[in-house]
Amino acid sequence: MRRIMLIVAYDGTKYCGWQIQPNALTVEEVLNRELSRLLKEEITVIGASRTDSGVHAMGNAAVFDTNTRMPAEKLCYALNHSLPEDIVIQRSFEVTPEFHPRKWDSKKTYEYKIWNADFIQPFNRGYTHFVYHALDVAAMREAAQYFLGEHDFTSFCSVKAQVPDHVRTIYSLEVEEDGHLITIRVSGSGFLYNMVRIIAGTLLLVGEHRKKPEEIKEMIEARNREAAGPTAPAKGLMLVKIEYFPDPEQMWREQRETRSPLAAE
Amino acid sequence: MRRIMLIVAYDGTKYCGWQIQPNALTVEEVLNRELSRLLKEEITVIGASRTDSGVHAMGNAAVFDTNTRMPAEKLCYALNHSLPEDIVIQRSFEVTPEFHPRKWDSKKTYEYKIWNADFIQPFNRGYTHFVYHALDVAAMREAAQYFLGEHDFTSFCSVKAQVPDHVRTIYSLEVEEDGHLITIRVSGSGFLYNMVRIIAGTLLLVGEHRKKPEEIKEMIEARNREAAGPTAPAKGLMLVKIEYFPDPEQMWREQRETRSPLAAE
Repeated sequence: MRRIMLIVAYDGTKYCGWQIQPNALTVEEVLNRELSRLLKEEITVIGASRTDSGVHAMGNAAVFDTNTRMPAEKLCYALNHSLPEDIVIQRSFEVTPEFHPRKWDSKKTYEYKIWNADFIQPFNRGYTHFVYHALDVAAMREAAQYFLGEHDFTSFCSVKAQVPDHVRTIYSLEVEEDGHLITIRVSGSGFLYNMVRIIAGTLLLVGEHRKKPEEIKEMIEARNREAAGPTAPAKGLMLVKIEYFPDPEQMWREQRETRSPLAAE
Repeated sequence: MRRIMLIVAYDGTKYCGWQIQPNALTVEEVLNRELSRLLKEEITVIGASRTDSGVHAMGNAAVFDTNTRMPAEKLCYALNHSLPEDIVIQRSFEVTPEFHPRKWDSKKTYEYKIWNADFIQPFNRGYTHFVYHALDVAAMREAAQYFLGEHDFTSFCSVKAQVPDHVRTIYSLEVEEDGHLITIRVSGSGFLYNMVRIIAGTLLLVGEHRKKPEEIKEMIEARNREAAGPTAPAKGLMLVKIEYFPDPEQMWREQRETRSPLAAE
């Protein structure tokens, strides 16, 4: 058995998120079906981030075990032929069999995109949240600083979340402005359910002068979902990339060299 | 009667272009229908650029005559409420009644976007032409220089075009590279039928080393459609903006001041 990792990009518009559920189309279900058909084995992927309905990904990760002899690097070419055009595998490669995409240390980067103009732009309407009210980006940047570091993010977590530990670390949180497009880019060790969308919804309140930047501190300290702002709409959110420590691809290469007869030379 | 101008953005994916035709949905038809409904008059717009099926626009222009008392600047807000989400009026304003969007001197800017990577990117698949073969952008830039200035562009014009005069002036032609995204941006006094898409298709041949940059000169001199490259796909093309000389909005303002009793002071 080999463990193969996929870097998965998808337009989440018509999917009910990543995770398989009855009576709804999900990205996981499409991958399992098309991988099983391609490899003529029953394949079950393990996803890194179980993104919500309507959320997009440029670099979600998934692994699966297989007996196929197809070179791992070529698998994405074959798979992309049978996938719908809104799911595209960007890379496929072998990783160490111990690797688990939700249990290993990682750094995840998300972007939340806002179109701040008088009118919607027809080309990015599926990938940005439209805000008419002119936003104060400087205030949003000031507010962003309060999220940095390790905090209990209970106030920024859906009440539907089931994990007991709400402590997470945010490494960086930038607010970029490019014409009418505002991008909130956040990297962290992991994110709670709806956490990025609640951070975005709260930064929007600051951008609209309905909250002051320094109020973020109190919101975090409250450890109460009602203290923070609303959950911003799903379509503005994009999972950009996930980095793992140690790198599971590098580990597989080293293990292969150790096992190889050439390594004895 | 007042003449009102609209700046029209649309995602051309599901439209058979701008111009009304039987048994096919067009942008012009939707605008006429919704303007007539809104203003309770029979409205017929005159479009600036009759873009082809599948071509997008950020700033196409259209004018129409109306007796409405609605302030011209507010009209776009009312109209956007009833338009489908893939057509969005970006601005509406009054212009001098003499103005005609196809007959006045203008500078038009188009962009042709290419996604040059191993795999399609799901988010821009409707707005870029996907090219797998790694493109030589430096060669494309060198080739671009030969198009500048006034030329007879018969070689870069669809044989279906019906205008007799094929002389046009290209003011600028840039090839930008931003990661996997290559943007060809061209400005000119006017463009022949399919001209930008044929220029893009020809620059692609140069980028793939199937033609040399200096061969552009011979292609133009040939005045024969068969001398140039293929017509690149519609979905990569976007009409960015149209500038008019003199400015018809400025002219209307000056005319109003002249007529105004205050002008006598």
